[in-house]
Amino acid sequence: MNQVHNLDAAFALIPEPWQPHRLASVNDYDVKVARLRGEFVWHAHPETDELFLVIEGRLTIQLRDGDVELGPRDVFVVPRGVEHCPKADEDALVVMVEPQGTVNTGDRPGERTAELRELADEV
Amino acid sequence: MNQVHNLDAAFALIPEPWQPHRLASVNDYDVKVARLRGEFVWHAHPETDELFLVIEGRLTIQLRDGDVELGPRDVFVVPRGVEHCPKADEDALVVMVEPQGTVNTGDRPGERTAELRELADEV
Repeated sequence: MNQVHNLDAAFALIPEPWQPHRLASVNDYDVKVARLRGEFVWHAHPETDELFLVIEGRLTIQLRDGDVELGPRDVFVVPRGVEHCPKADEDALVVMVEPQGTVNTGDRPGERTAELRELADEV
Repeated sequence: MNQVHNLDAAFALIPEPWQPHRLASVNDYDVKVARLRGEFVWHAHPETDELFLVIEGRLTIQLRDGDVELGPRDVFVVPRGVEHCPKADEDALVVMVEPQGTVNTGDRPGERTAELRELADEV
């Protein structure tokens, strides 16, 4: 099945913020999409780097040593173990790349922890 | 070093087609960027899937069982071991995700084999 995944179609199916959806997989890595709005929680991923690619909107990745500001087509990798807290005043549409099984809240499980969702087959 | 990588800035530094450049790494995976124009060579990657995300332009990924047509914000994963041959009538600007060490021509080394280049630090 030679399936093409379209980012715009994917984001159109994701109304709620902070809910990661799997767009595709590369071996044992997931390429996820999410809509980010508001402020997340401070957390780290002790076992993995985490890549953010902003497709639309603006995203601030707060780090303990300062903020990283991202706009469309900007890429930032949060190194493994580094505490961060994403924040977006308006909707930011982002792609994330990380190993399968990476949990959105990393080492801070709680009410913001969200199970990865699958996108509809046609996206 | 909290470095932001911008896709537009990266592509602006890449004039030659089919030359992969490393934009960023996520653990032992590379996120590469390349300008594609013309037709590549048929090859497969026996050991890994290969993800293509088109940022600008149009890309055809020829497979033995048909062509896959990609436009902006389209994602396609060539499964490991599947023969493919990318083709672009005009410049296509693409992001690729694959494990470090993946060679562009896979199982068909030859004159189109290109060593991965590093992008300038400021991109």
